[in-house]
Amino acid sequence: MPPATARAAVLASYGRPLELREFPLVPLADGEVRVRVMAAGVCGSDVHIWRGEDPRTPLPLILGHEGVGCVDEIRGAKQDVYDQELRPGDLVLWERGITCGRCAYCVIRKQPALCPHRRTYGISVGCADAPHLRGAYAEYIHLRADAHLIRVDGDVDPAVLVSATCSGACAAHAIEQAHIRPGDAVLVLGPGPMAMFLVAFARERGAGHITVIGSRRSAARLAMAQRMGADSVLFRDETSLADRLEAVRDQTHGFGACVVFEASGSPEAVAEAVEHTAPYGTCLIPGIAVPVGRVPVSVFEHIARKNVRLQGVWVSDTSHLCAALDLVLSRRYPFDEMVTHRFPLDEATGALEVVERREAVKAVVMP
Amino acid sequence: MPPATARAAVLASYGRPLELREFPLVPLADGEVRVRVMAAGVCGSDVHIWRGEDPRTPLPLILGHEGVGCVDEIRGAKQDVYDQELRPGDLVLWERGITCGRCAYCVIRKQPALCPHRRTYGISVGCADAPHLRGAYAEYIHLRADAHLIRVDGDVDPAVLVSATCSGACAAHAIEQAHIRPGDAVLVLGPGPMAMFLVAFARERGAGHITVIGSRRSAARLAMAQRMGADSVLFRDETSLADRLEAVRDQTHGFGACVVFEASGSPEAVAEAVEHTAPYGTCLIPGIAVPVGRVPVSVFEHIARKNVRLQGVWVSDTSHLCAALDLVLSRRYPFDEMVTHRFPLDEATGALEVVERREAVKAVVMP
Amino acid sequence: MPPATARAAVLASYGRPLELREFPLVPLADGEVRVRVMAAGVCGSDVHIWRGEDPRTPLPLILGHEGVGCVDEIRGAKQDVYDQELRPGDLVLWERGITCGRCAYCVIRKQPALCPHRRTYGISVGCADAPHLRGAYAEYIHLRADAHLIRVDGDVDPAVLVSATCSGACAAHAIEQAHIRPGDAVLVLGPGPMAMFLVAFARERGAGHITVIGSRRSAARLAMAQRMGADSVLFRDETSLADRLEAVRDQTHGFGACVVFEASGSPEAVAEAVEHTAPYGTCLIPGIAVPVGRVPVSVFEHIARKNVRLQGVWVSDTSHLCAALDLVLSRRYPFDEMVTHRFPLDEATGALEVVERREAVKAVVMP
Amino acid sequence: MPPATARAAVLASYGRPLELREFPLVPLADGEVRVRVMAAGVCGSDVHIWRGEDPRTPLPLILGHEGVGCVDEIRGAKQDVYDQELRPGDLVLWERGITCGRCAYCVIRKQPALCPHRRTYGISVGCADAPHLRGAYAEYIHLRADAHLIRVDGDVDPAVLVSATCSGACAAHAIEQAHIRPGDAVLVLGPGPMAMFLVAFARERGAGHITVIGSRRSAARLAMAQRMGADSVLFRDETSLADRLEAVRDQTHGFGACVVFEASGSPEAVAEAVEHTAPYGTCLIPGIAVPVGRVPVSVFEHIARKNVRLQGVWVSDTSHLCAALDLVLSRRYPFDEMVTHRFPLDEATGALEVVERREAVKAVVMP
Repeated sequence: MPPATARAAVLASYGRPLELREFPLVPLADGEVRVRVMAAGVCGSDVHIWRGEDPRTPLPLILGHEGVGCVDEIRGAKQDVYDQELRPGDLVLWERGITCGRCAYCVIRKQPALCPHRRTYGISVGCADAPHLRGAYAEYIHLRADAHLIRVDGDVDPAVLVSATCSGACAAHAIEQAHIRPGDAVLVLGPGPMAMFLVAFARERGAGHITVIGSRRSAARLAMAQRMGADSVLFRDETSLADRLEAVRDQTHGFGACVVFEASGSPEAVAEAVEHTAPYGTCLIPGIAVPVGRVPVSVFEHIARKNVRLQGVWVSDTSHLCAALDLVLSRRYPFDEMVTHRFPLDEATGALEVVERREAVKAVVMP
Repeated sequence: MPPATARAAVLASYGRPLELREFPLVPLADGEVRVRVMAAGVCGSDVHIWRGEDPRTPLPLILGHEGVGCVDEIRGAKQDVYDQELRPGDLVLWERGITCGRCAYCVIRKQPALCPHRRTYGISVGCADAPHLRGAYAEYIHLRADAHLIRVDGDVDPAVLVSATCSGACAAHAIEQAHIRPGDAVLVLGPGPMAMFLVAFARERGAGHITVIGSRRSAARLAMAQRMGADSVLFRDETSLADRLEAVRDQTHGFGACVVFEASGSPEAVAEAVEHTAPYGTCLIPGIAVPVGRVPVSVFEHIARKNVRLQGVWVSDTSHLCAALDLVLSRRYPFDEMVTHRFPLDEATGALEVVERREAVKAVVMP
Repeated sequence: MPPATARAAVLASYGRPLELREFPLVPLADGEVRVRVMAAGVCGSDVHIWRGEDPRTPLPLILGHEGVGCVDEIRGAKQDVYDQELRPGDLVLWERGITCGRCAYCVIRKQPALCPHRRTYGISVGCADAPHLRGAYAEYIHLRADAHLIRVDGDVDPAVLVSATCSGACAAHAIEQAHIRPGDAVLVLGPGPMAMFLVAFARERGAGHITVIGSRRSAARLAMAQRMGADSVLFRDETSLADRLEAVRDQTHGFGACVVFEASGSPEAVAEAVEHTAPYGTCLIPGIAVPVGRVPVSVFEHIARKNVRLQGVWVSDTSHLCAALDLVLSRRYPFDEMVTHRFPLDEATGALEVVERREAVKAVVMP
Repeated sequence: MPPATARAAVLASYGRPLELREFPLVPLADGEVRVRVMAAGVCGSDVHIWRGEDPRTPLPLILGHEGVGCVDEIRGAKQDVYDQELRPGDLVLWERGITCGRCAYCVIRKQPALCPHRRTYGISVGCADAPHLRGAYAEYIHLRADAHLIRVDGDVDPAVLVSATCSGACAAHAIEQAHIRPGDAVLVLGPGPMAMFLVAFARERGAGHITVIGSRRSAARLAMAQRMGADSVLFRDETSLADRLEAVRDQTHGFGACVVFEASGSPEAVAEAVEHTAPYGTCLIPGIAVPVGRVPVSVFEHIARKNVRLQGVWVSDTSHLCAALDLVLSRRYPFDEMVTHRFPLDEATGALEVVERREAVKAVVMP
């Protein structure tokens, strides 16, 4: 029997330590599910939100849009996305986005990630009102009746799964839009958690030579990217742009990379990414999650003359979450290495700090 | 029996009047075809070449990459792209690009427009060496054995067909990459010959509301675009960007245009085009044919956050030529109105001038 | 203020006349909508259900899965698929399928038409239990909170719109999967309501020559197909298969039709359809809605050797409904001609009869 | 310096042993290449041709459409498909198909495999006329100027590469058309050389569970398929169809396989393949290379109701050859195991026999 209350790490004031607060467990409405959180991932976005760089965030807010947990209680019968019956005790993940299910982007374009009514657990649903527990930095999360859940069977470490719910899902979305053809040379700029998924997914889609660019400071991450399947790495701060362009062309019969992912979030990297792209290639931008100003693009030389596709990628939907989860569960890639830091709930602020200082590849809060 | 020589308008010195010169008719090699030119289109690129803005052009050069004519002589049996036997007297068009047929872009990617060995009749094959007659501003053109020809049956005005060979084909290429879905709102910036084809093609692909933007000075062209199928027009110089964004959103449930074509060639229009594009939409750039410098793009707001595709479109191949020709031959659109000026061969320079001054929608040289 | 009860035509016993019964109007739950039915289309499937050929149909049942009506009452605020606010009096259509919104086909494959939990208003939701009014052969229909509605503005005849909700939507689905390229020759077998939409849609997707095959008895329908955009028709009962194959090849440079739609529902037509398909072409099967036994297919000659795609098409979803509605509302095609018969609610059985006897192109019940 | 003559194994009379004959080496025309054959694969088609089951084969004929060799002589400069200069001594493969390069299938549809003028080295070009050496069961092969060659660098066993040129390329073509999504369950019927490539390619495209069906007699091949990446195998002769359907559904949340390849060549397998296919799935037919009569298909149950795609796959083109070669050269799969038998040129008939008796997975003639 669950306790009557649950503790959660609450963002009450931007930039200040999260506050541990206690909330009542509210009775479930029909179809709702309460999940006992086992692991909550600390995303780069969490740091942005903590620092108040996203002014639309409602305060107070329980952070945590990457969550894995065990079903605590269900009101009524409920199946996961694979029509598997859910029962208390089941290990589950859920789609972090809440979408309307009836607008043009949900039902005509079938791109719920672009639903104009989309909200996100742990980002845009505050904790002031019942049922309060709408973020994963908490002992329990209270999911809506329209939540999409996925049951995970077998013995798996919840902390390893959390990356699938956001970085992994966004990478899956980028990969879906990349349309990698067998043998396509792939380039990834920025060796963060998303890059780890991009490399593994690119390998799974039959990519040819995979290169990752990062700084010397990220040498350990670049080495991890190589264990994920990258064939070579380039140090951004020890080479010139001309060097890097030449290095990539040397691997690609002189054409550049067929598929380029900008995953660093830096505007300079966008311009470089486009320049690396081969004629008829695709340059995807899954890494730009906050405004970065205007990037000057040589439209003739790098887009028109090369017939290049520059493709924005915005968040992800349930299909991508499932793809990312499948990849982790395949055990063909060392995703367990990614979890470099674990924190108890009352040290969640420390988790934000190691991510902000880029000490962690992935930090996980274990409530 | 053909004469022993043919006259051609030769670009011998940039910016100077074309010179009428006489060239010998050279015997055909196996598979080659000599065509009596009936009409040669004057493309905006011809003006750029004339002005010396493309330094790679070999001089002396017979201009003319848009041609329609009658078969004069064939060496051996030859079929057109539809396996129709070609005979002297047949009215024909031909693909202006000469590609290698064995490189990665020709046989693996199947994008011959991007063949790194691509050359173009009337642009990059000079007339210094035999067989000299490699451009359409001439009484005869000497086509290689690997030329792709299309026979046109029935009574058609050759001058009306020339636009299909370049503007029309490039528009067909852009349309192919646009992936218009039924009902998609379409926006075209820049009401030139390519825009006329884009509007008609968009109508043929089931577009919803079609808008064209141009200047008041181009009012006649905008009216022509409406006869081609555009639903509304906007005057660029009598509205603010905010006005135009609002006008387009009013037609599109507030989302912007699903498919936007930048067909004006102006770098400012590229930035505007991206801003008009709806989430999950596509912004195509078929109009940027020469370097225009760097265009600042708000990558987060206009590309990433909207999951937009910015797609370069480079020239065209035979498949696009066939699509454009079919469209003209369907007689469902008033392409005959586009031919506003006709010049004899010895006044070819005058044809360049009316295009440069934007007096003509389409000017045609009739050798 | 609505009356306390509503009349409906109820299928109580297979093959017997529908019975006019009175049902109470049940209070709406949150998000539900009650619609005053203006027009209910009589689909060929309704005849199959009436005759008891679909044993899974629950009795008693209010028939009618094609409906158009005016909003009578809404519980709470509600928007249509275009985020337009719905208000009493608005003319609306709705998606006939009810899907679960959380299974693999709904959220991963994004093909709700294949949701294993899909049910359909007027087909698989009986009237024994409250709220009873779940079919369109009734004065009112009670829609669930998860219904997808589309508001139609302006002065339109509801009877003309009903075809969009099923035949039109299924045709839109088939067209979506057909991937028609500009100029593709199209062939339609069977000149029923779906064929009218297929012809108009094919014209909208830039098809080349469009041919429709039907019997002499269907001469009037074939003539209607020509007014929809078909270029030629063939009488099935006055030609041999060899004649028809030759006639189609004569229009297609000898290759056969690039895109073939089997829309007659006959198994013989499936075999013929595959034979008409050009190499690299697509043969779609939207017309087979009930078991027809095994069709012998020459897999080598007609599928493998020609690299042909044989594509099943099952029902439709909201995106297709919207596409079909847009097409009707464009007024570019004479869809009003399709409505050949109208019946009051108490003569709904007569409507079934004229459809069963193939006297009607489209019969509509006007409650 | 090459000898003045070359020996070749000639099919002079169907069903009789190949005859070893001597042919003169003919001088090369411009762009032609003479290759010293290092390895020639024995394809199942070779057995069909030998047995006279393809009556269009011209006699006498040098068999061998799968070839790998060293450049002996080139007339003029020549590059391979990657623009790499070719020089005597280079190890090369070449596209076996000879296509016209100017018809609708070559330049509009860009499907040269369907070029109606396509001919094949070793299949449809006889040896009666000079330059005679047009098949790979010979010491030298004389390639046309329009041949597409690929240079292979490094130390590789030519015998291992031959499978890429036909089985591998056809598998690459099937995979291209399969559009495998990440996690899709894949089923392959028939464990021959093509299946080995299909399994490895499916793994490279991110397939989920891969199953292969074969007979107990093929247990060794099934084991090899597992080393290529198959997750499970089913013995066709020790299970009922119902057993196999259930086994596949058990791996696929009850839906069946998303992508099914019929690679056995048997008509019964086609019907079974369609039945295994999940809703919205694709069933590909790359294995039916000769007429097999009519296959009865339950069009409603297995195609229409499931929205299934049944896709023919006909031979392959250069893009597929390159994909197959890349896969072999990646060394991620044990393709070297496939070469179970090697024969000198004068025992080529023995090679046909071991293939006919299905003793070999892959037999190779080493001239």
